[in-house]
Amino acid sequence: MTDRNIRVEPVVGRAVEAQDVEIVERKGLGHPDSLCDGIAEHVSQALAREYIDRVGKVLHYNTDETQLVAGSSAPEFGGGEVVDPIYLLITGRATKEYEGTKIPAETIALRAAREYIHEQFPFIEYGVDIIADVKLGEGSGDLQEVFGEDGKQIPMSNDTSFGVGHAPLTETERIVLETERQLNGRYSDDNPAVGQDIKVMGKRESDTIDVTVAVAVVDSYVADIDEYDETIDGVQTFVETLAADYTDRDVRVHVNTADNYEEDSIYLTTTGTSAEQGDDGSVGRGNRANGLITPNRSMSMEATSGKNPVNHIGKIYNLLSTEIARTVVAEVDGILEARIRLLSQIGQPIDRPHVADASLATDDGIEVGDIEDDVTAIIDSELENVTAITERVIAGELTTF
Amino acid sequence: MTDRNIRVEPVVGRAVEAQDVEIVERKGLGHPDSLCDGIAEHVSQALAREYIDRVGKVLHYNTDETQLVAGSSAPEFGGGEVVDPIYLLITGRATKEYEGTKIPAETIALRAAREYIHEQFPFIEYGVDIIADVKLGEGSGDLQEVFGEDGKQIPMSNDTSFGVGHAPLTETERIVLETERQLNGRYSDDNPAVGQDIKVMGKRESDTIDVTVAVAVVDSYVADIDEYDETIDGVQTFVETLAADYTDRDVRVHVNTADNYEEDSIYLTTTGTSAEQGDDGSVGRGNRANGLITPNRSMSMEATSGKNPVNHIGKIYNLLSTEIARTVVAEVDGILEARIRLLSQIGQPIDRPHVADASLATDDGIEVGDIEDDVTAIIDSELENVTAITERVIAGELTTF
Amino acid sequence: MTDRNIRVEPVVGRAVEAQDVEIVERKGLGHPDSLCDGIAEHVSQALAREYIDRVGKVLHYNTDETQLVAGSSAPEFGGGEVVDPIYLLITGRATKEYEGTKIPAETIALRAAREYIHEQFPFIEYGVDIIADVKLGEGSGDLQEVFGEDGKQIPMSNDTSFGVGHAPLTETERIVLETERQLNGRYSDDNPAVGQDIKVMGKRESDTIDVTVAVAVVDSYVADIDEYDETIDGVQTFVETLAADYTDRDVRVHVNTADNYEEDSIYLTTTGTSAEQGDDGSVGRGNRANGLITPNRSMSMEATSGKNPVNHIGKIYNLLSTEIARTVVAEVDGILEARIRLLSQIGQPIDRPHVADASLATDDGIEVGDIEDDVTAIIDSELENVTAITERVIAGELTTF
Amino acid sequence: MTDRNIRVEPVVGRAVEAQDVEIVERKGLGHPDSLCDGIAEHVSQALAREYIDRVGKVLHYNTDETQLVAGSSAPEFGGGEVVDPIYLLITGRATKEYEGTKIPAETIALRAAREYIHEQFPFIEYGVDIIADVKLGEGSGDLQEVFGEDGKQIPMSNDTSFGVGHAPLTETERIVLETERQLNGRYSDDNPAVGQDIKVMGKRESDTIDVTVAVAVVDSYVADIDEYDETIDGVQTFVETLAADYTDRDVRVHVNTADNYEEDSIYLTTTGTSAEQGDDGSVGRGNRANGLITPNRSMSMEATSGKNPVNHIGKIYNLLSTEIARTVVAEVDGILEARIRLLSQIGQPIDRPHVADASLATDDGIEVGDIEDDVTAIIDSELENVTAITERVIAGELTTF
Repeated sequence: MTDRNIRVEPVVGRAVEAQDVEIVERKGLGHPDSLCDGIAEHVSQALAREYIDRVGKVLHYNTDETQLVAGSSAPEFGGGEVVDPIYLLITGRATKEYEGTKIPAETIALRAAREYIHEQFPFIEYGVDIIADVKLGEGSGDLQEVFGEDGKQIPMSNDTSFGVGHAPLTETERIVLETERQLNGRYSDDNPAVGQDIKVMGKRESDTIDVTVAVAVVDSYVADIDEYDETIDGVQTFVETLAADYTDRDVRVHVNTADNYEEDSIYLTTTGTSAEQGDDGSVGRGNRANGLITPNRSMSMEATSGKNPVNHIGKIYNLLSTEIARTVVAEVDGILEARIRLLSQIGQPIDRPHVADASLATDDGIEVGDIEDDVTAIIDSELENVTAITERVIAGELTTF
Repeated sequence: MTDRNIRVEPVVGRAVEAQDVEIVERKGLGHPDSLCDGIAEHVSQALAREYIDRVGKVLHYNTDETQLVAGSSAPEFGGGEVVDPIYLLITGRATKEYEGTKIPAETIALRAAREYIHEQFPFIEYGVDIIADVKLGEGSGDLQEVFGEDGKQIPMSNDTSFGVGHAPLTETERIVLETERQLNGRYSDDNPAVGQDIKVMGKRESDTIDVTVAVAVVDSYVADIDEYDETIDGVQTFVETLAADYTDRDVRVHVNTADNYEEDSIYLTTTGTSAEQGDDGSVGRGNRANGLITPNRSMSMEATSGKNPVNHIGKIYNLLSTEIARTVVAEVDGILEARIRLLSQIGQPIDRPHVADASLATDDGIEVGDIEDDVTAIIDSELENVTAITERVIAGELTTF
Repeated sequence: MTDRNIRVEPVVGRAVEAQDVEIVERKGLGHPDSLCDGIAEHVSQALAREYIDRVGKVLHYNTDETQLVAGSSAPEFGGGEVVDPIYLLITGRATKEYEGTKIPAETIALRAAREYIHEQFPFIEYGVDIIADVKLGEGSGDLQEVFGEDGKQIPMSNDTSFGVGHAPLTETERIVLETERQLNGRYSDDNPAVGQDIKVMGKRESDTIDVTVAVAVVDSYVADIDEYDETIDGVQTFVETLAADYTDRDVRVHVNTADNYEEDSIYLTTTGTSAEQGDDGSVGRGNRANGLITPNRSMSMEATSGKNPVNHIGKIYNLLSTEIARTVVAEVDGILEARIRLLSQIGQPIDRPHVADASLATDDGIEVGDIEDDVTAIIDSELENVTAITERVIAGELTTF
Repeated sequence: MTDRNIRVEPVVGRAVEAQDVEIVERKGLGHPDSLCDGIAEHVSQALAREYIDRVGKVLHYNTDETQLVAGSSAPEFGGGEVVDPIYLLITGRATKEYEGTKIPAETIALRAAREYIHEQFPFIEYGVDIIADVKLGEGSGDLQEVFGEDGKQIPMSNDTSFGVGHAPLTETERIVLETERQLNGRYSDDNPAVGQDIKVMGKRESDTIDVTVAVAVVDSYVADIDEYDETIDGVQTFVETLAADYTDRDVRVHVNTADNYEEDSIYLTTTGTSAEQGDDGSVGRGNRANGLITPNRSMSMEATSGKNPVNHIGKIYNLLSTEIARTVVAEVDGILEARIRLLSQIGQPIDRPHVADASLATDDGIEVGDIEDDVTAIIDSELENVTAITERVIAGELTTF
């Protein structure tokens, strides 16, 4: 059926859900590292689309190196201000000329950054509270060559790299992920005092889950310490309710635990992010491609955000392995947990990894051998369709952090 | 004996050495990410020492956000040149004034950067081939307060974070680590054509280990393609011999596999690093605190390099857990593999983690219960001595990447 | 009547209007040097107003060092685009904290820059076509002290410096000044193809005046070379008509003389300024305080734009001497030409210059001695009212370039 | 003899030496504006030489836009330190590729900057006390074309511009010029406490000359206020003696008049320049091409330093007119004062100015008509040899500030 090197094996231990101690973290949309991830990925999508519009295909680029230098601010109840602006250096590589067509990669990048800030950060004034600078160099000749072989359907891998994906999420993972997403979604729509910089840490010891949430409160929406306190209480109640939807375990929620009202030490911000005051950030230091940091699970160090979705093998394999894991769990019965790893080989077509490696925990009574063929078939099919990942990334349908 | 929350448990699966597929990577000293790690950590040590000299204690700082923007170069046999300089932005936070004493944090940082480049990168001309810029802001008020409680021996944790360490290294890990260290050490002393940017990827499938090495060759030391080819052959032979010291498994060594002599596409550089041409870098994107990227093992996402070694809990716990793992394996018989995790709690003394968690694989005939007390005692003692980690970091005795 | 050191003397030669060769230049609003002047002065006014709002008086600052690094662009008929953004570094000194009040000098500066670009440069997209960066350091301690003596009405001079002013303008000067102002005013309102970067050079040899105009044409308003040509013709006709209002001498007008239609070498731009493509700029390199460069006249090298209007003696004396010259000519009959010079002495009150020196050319039959007292009285009175200059600068009532 | 448009006329008034009030200024080598001039010109010379070495001719470039952002420092008797580094942005235009040859313009510029700092500023540590950054864009297409017409001996003028030169210097001018040169020359060789930032202002009223000198004193060479005071006294005596060599008029010398010993307000520096603390600088804001600022004389606003010496007409004409004035005065008897102006016409050969205009003050008994032919012949000959100016600039034989 296939000559791809696919291996299916039993998991090498207990499923994460069954382990005694589990740690999970998510850096929310407005965390300085995530802000960089978001800019990098938004710039990447904009470049990819412009390349397609202008020359009919995506050219060589990588914009996965955005660096944020924190500003300083003077938040105060009722509305403070940014004192020294945040500095954002968008860096990376981009092709600026192709067969006589000039591509304004730097202004494309700045426009994308402005758009992203406008959409996601209502309290950051672009060009005033944040300076976006840009240095996009040309790539090395070699990479451009590998890239230019446009007769071929399937690009060649640009590196020896690997990707890893897991499914399903554990209860703790789901709680951590949903806490941030919903706080930054429907909850903050109704409660604008909740800023975008939300960090969630989940820790499970046996059947007790501690959810620690740090929320940047927006000063213009809280008039005094009482309103601040109400904001914190509101988040606490919301997260407690939310968690109960995902688990029957005991859940304890802690919000802004570093606050000390007596010393006037609270997490009050003007812009809704700690980048305004002392917290730097950069791409690839925070959430993995599935939106979480999961030390109980195998993780790739590759930054997914900002990478070229056509031939950057680390990005593609991280996203694809996650997709495969989800599909396998959804379509094959009897799987408790699946881990998919894809290891590339530089210079080979990306649909033919050096090894594709599935590690499965199964229900009682199910052997890996019973489902091996089904799993192999799914992996094979997904690899064959690898370029769909690229298209979905460019369309903004896949999150990368 | 202790009321620290220490847990000792059996490993949740097969030891890594016993798993079917193992992947290990090391980004060498001159890889753009490692170059940033090295600068960040060197700057950190310099700041810590200056603070102690000037005010008697380490003040608040974190310099873990160095960003490198690649230059462009025109390498050629016999010696080429850098065309556009590499740009290095040293960023982070530093205390610039303390009780009336001004601390020249930015000039200290630049001096440290210059020193590090001079020592480690003989082919990069500081201030010409590389521009070092610096933006060290002041930290947020809160952090400085937590930091300033100098009556207390043991600092409080500044964050909810965790660290993880493993011992012993697997054969593949040892080969990957030693390959880079020795190539960048005694081998390049005798063979200056071998540049500092060396990336090593190890992949083991059952009993076959593939070691893929990418070496930046220094143009001024190779006169032509034949000498280039000899350089590659020399590395190949050296690594094959080295690997045989660490394993009886089959080892296949691949050096600069992306080269294509016919298309004049080779890995030739002027400075010995790919930062000269198109490869950006930043702190914390590469090796973990033990020098390796090990997707088969639990890893922390924290950048260790550049962080403040007095109270940055992620840094301290990553280094300490690695030390504990090594000590446990060295001092307690019957352990095949140990993983130590330390989870902090913000605002608590750092010698009292929320949980210290040892996961052990043992020899046949040894139960975890048999050695639990010994392991607990070691962990307890190392935690009690946690500040020794800080001292050793400042003295430059611990590597962080 | 006064003990100020005021001297009134006959001119040292023929009035400029009577000289054989006269050269006059004006760099229009959108010339890269003028763009920097405009930003610098707009930032200065914004800072002055904010200081008054927040602490009741203007604190130490100088923002006269804005530097513009040109971008690159791809103009084309019907509308092109900026390829690499213009980079604007707003630098200088500003007081960021005063008696416990933080002043967000950098965000004030960026907001002012954005406002100025929006108002004056409709074809430059702030934050995309132009990056505004800012580095405002603290001033030296000494200057701040001199500045802080707020009990005194009249500030002390901060430097040994001088200012010089002339009146009335010669015919050539008026033509050059009005050509740019009207092209950038009512003419471009009706003819948006005329961009902001307009440079006018006037040369008079005896009774023949050559007016050379270089106009950046905005690509989105010209569909082809014919429309471009019509635009140039329109400017030519407009300037010829305008000049006739100011002189009876022969006037020859030359517009975009470097164009070469056959080689497709024309002055087409996307943004209306040459800053988009290769022309850098900085403060104080262009027009003097009266809006002109006049090598036939005594000129001060001081940059007037961006300087602190409270105590920067070069700025105040350049503006004041120009005002005095105009007043003297307006109020005293029989003066053909007046040059006023004011020389400061560091540490002395600014209403008491080291010397105030009037040099007059008079009508036939009028001796300088006849009008000396009137002139002296005007100078004395204007000096006494020196602080009015400061107020008018802050209110934006005086142009500085 | 020639068809160049050369005009010789009587001066339009009294010679400067005969005027009542004369003002002259020189910003010394270490003044932030002059430091920028020096870097810009040194970079220019280095680029010109590299272009000649690599492609046989000087290509298009202009490096006349260097911007300096001051640092901050903590000087103290016996030796202080720089706290925040000086930031130097070297900007302008340069050709980076010519017929397939890459020219590393940016690393050439940085190397030249480093060399200049090393040679001229012994107390500034390059790369630590000062950060040199560089942004050299490509020029506009048009200019490169004008430039590339290499068949022609004489380049075409790139602009409508003019240059002006004077000879001989007045007594006050000579004193001001020599004061700075000798203090920065033989005097500081013996008295290293005298820093490079020396500003000299000369004011003559009739027969009294006030020379005001501001000298940055180097802290590591003065142990206390007494040694500081001795340093100031030494300068005072030296300048008084020096001035007596150039004039019989009364001379009053004032050194560091802003000092206030009681308030510990003195001009003490660590690096010998005020750039270390609060004084920004940029190219073309200080001395004119003859080394002086002379409001009594006609001046050009053009920045001479850093401009391309092959075709930048402002630079060439400023230097050439100064040379012509000196030659005319040296070779033709009976001239009290000569002013030479050269006005270019864009697109015409630079040896054929639109007008060359000599204005002469003559000895009693000499009419301009008597010497007109001699003067015309010299001007004609110097114009014919205009390219010699270019060669001497590249060789570093002509000062530009």
